[in-house]
Amino acid sequence: MTPDPTCIFCKIARKEIPAEIVYEDNDFLVFLDINPLSPGHVLIIPKDHYRWVWDVPNLDAYMILAGKMALVLRKAFDQEMILSKVVGEEIPHAHIWLFPSNKTEGDKKDFKENARRIREAIGR
Amino acid sequence: MTPDPTCIFCKIARKEIPAEIVYEDNDFLVFLDINPLSPGHVLIIPKDHYRWVWDVPNLDAYMILAGKMALVLRKAFDQEMILSKVVGEEIPHAHIWLFPSNKTEGDKKDFKENARRIREAIGR
Repeated sequence: MTPDPTCIFCKIARKEIPAEIVYEDNDFLVFLDINPLSPGHVLIIPKDHYRWVWDVPNLDAYMILAGKMALVLRKAFDQEMILSKVVGEEIPHAHIWLFPSNKTEGDKKDFKENARRIREAIGR
Repeated sequence: MTPDPTCIFCKIARKEIPAEIVYEDNDFLVFLDINPLSPGHVLIIPKDHYRWVWDVPNLDAYMILAGKMALVLRKAFDQEMILSKVVGEEIPHAHIWLFPSNKTEGDKKDFKENARRIREAIGR
């Protein structure tokens, strides 16, 4: 789909506005939510603009990535309870929320440190 | 894992207590939530007992099934907005919630009709 010039997630995908990106492949991007509910709260988005998660053509790969990222968050924050939400009314670009329990230790606003932990857990 | 004799979802998986099951394969079961937030609110569970979604060994297959069921709900209820949640504090057996927007037409408590619609959409 053609990118939407006004869409904030398209701008993040095009690196026109900064985000703490922790993972990226040809189709998807994972970055820290700017208003985190807990340390390591990430958003998983397709780089191309789709309205809903369920519109993404390679939905299987998208869902598999969400599962893998949940396992990464478990390792990164030593927390077995990871929450996931797909709602989608706030920003009209497909996104999956994934975040550790709010009982997780750490500073949810320490984006540099939380991104470092996630990248390190991906490498493990 | 060994089944937990007190677990309500294990009992549903063993068909010891009734549920409106709409899909089943060797590893997973999809059935209507008894306290639906909207028509067609389903739970997707592994038949074996795991505490968290992220503990399920064939997590890729589990996540792919969740995506496929979301597409089924779209067709069954003519609703593009499908919500998904993984929390897991209420019942200690892995489960993924999937439900159409609460603006979806229909009676969320009409389990027979909602199950019929889902089964019919799976067959399409």
